[in-house]
Amino acid sequence: MPKPPLPSEIEEFLAQPNPSVIATLDLNGGPHTAATWYLWEHGRALVNMDSTRKRLEHLRRDPRVSLTVLDKDQWYRQVTLRGRATLQPDEDLKDIDRIASHYTGDRYSDRERESVSAWIEVESWYGWHGAEFWTGKR
Amino acid sequence: MPKPPLPSEIEEFLAQPNPSVIATLDLNGGPHTAATWYLWEHGRALVNMDSTRKRLEHLRRDPRVSLTVLDKDQWYRQVTLRGRATLQPDEDLKDIDRIASHYTGDRYSDRERESVSAWIEVESWYGWHGAEFWTGKR
Repeated sequence: MPKPPLPSEIEEFLAQPNPSVIATLDLNGGPHTAATWYLWEHGRALVNMDSTRKRLEHLRRDPRVSLTVLDKDQWYRQVTLRGRATLQPDEDLKDIDRIASHYTGDRYSDRERESVSAWIEVESWYGWHGAEFWTGKR
Repeated sequence: MPKPPLPSEIEEFLAQPNPSVIATLDLNGGPHTAATWYLWEHGRALVNMDSTRKRLEHLRRDPRVSLTVLDKDQWYRQVTLRGRATLQPDEDLKDIDRIASHYTGDRYSDRERESVSAWIEVESWYGWHGAEFWTGKR
């Protein structure tokens, strides 16, 4: 699988408010998936969780993640990012507000949420379009 | 997480040709994800791979999978199935043809493909709709 940096065509795709699914490892090392919002910023993917989420325990035990981003209009086009997540508190909900605005146009509705951010540092990635690899290079 | 059998409302959702993402464990036990077609049949999820896919090696080593199915119209509604995959050859491309027909209306275009099926036996599942669990029970 290719390594970063990502080609600009792939970065432009990731900058859209696309559906995505994140995989973490549960406490038994099994795969666990969930739909998630993400934000592509400065060559990293930002995701955010309520502090009660099981996913946080998973990431504290093993930071490895895989994030598959689907094209919002044609889901046969996808980019998968694999890497490690670094957790940090989301003070004043700044991160989740930025993410929610990206998807909905508004800041996050629940102001009581205790929010934790995970920055995903990409170690490898691949793109797929229909039946072919999408390399982002023409 | 709830155990099978799934409520009929959830089964009806899974019967649609929805986008989905499957997570497997790579040879180092790390999470690996990919967009995939699936078919919900007789209380199990069927996915299918070209015989050259890395994912097959993953599943031979560790059969645990997690499949997140997104609503094709509103991806905030999702169902995640966790379980184990059993592999079997897809003779005469019967399975991939059934899956391709479900999504595209046509049988699979590449008739030279060597095709392998994976039946996912669900051990647990959860649904999510917006900011709430989707239990399929009213």
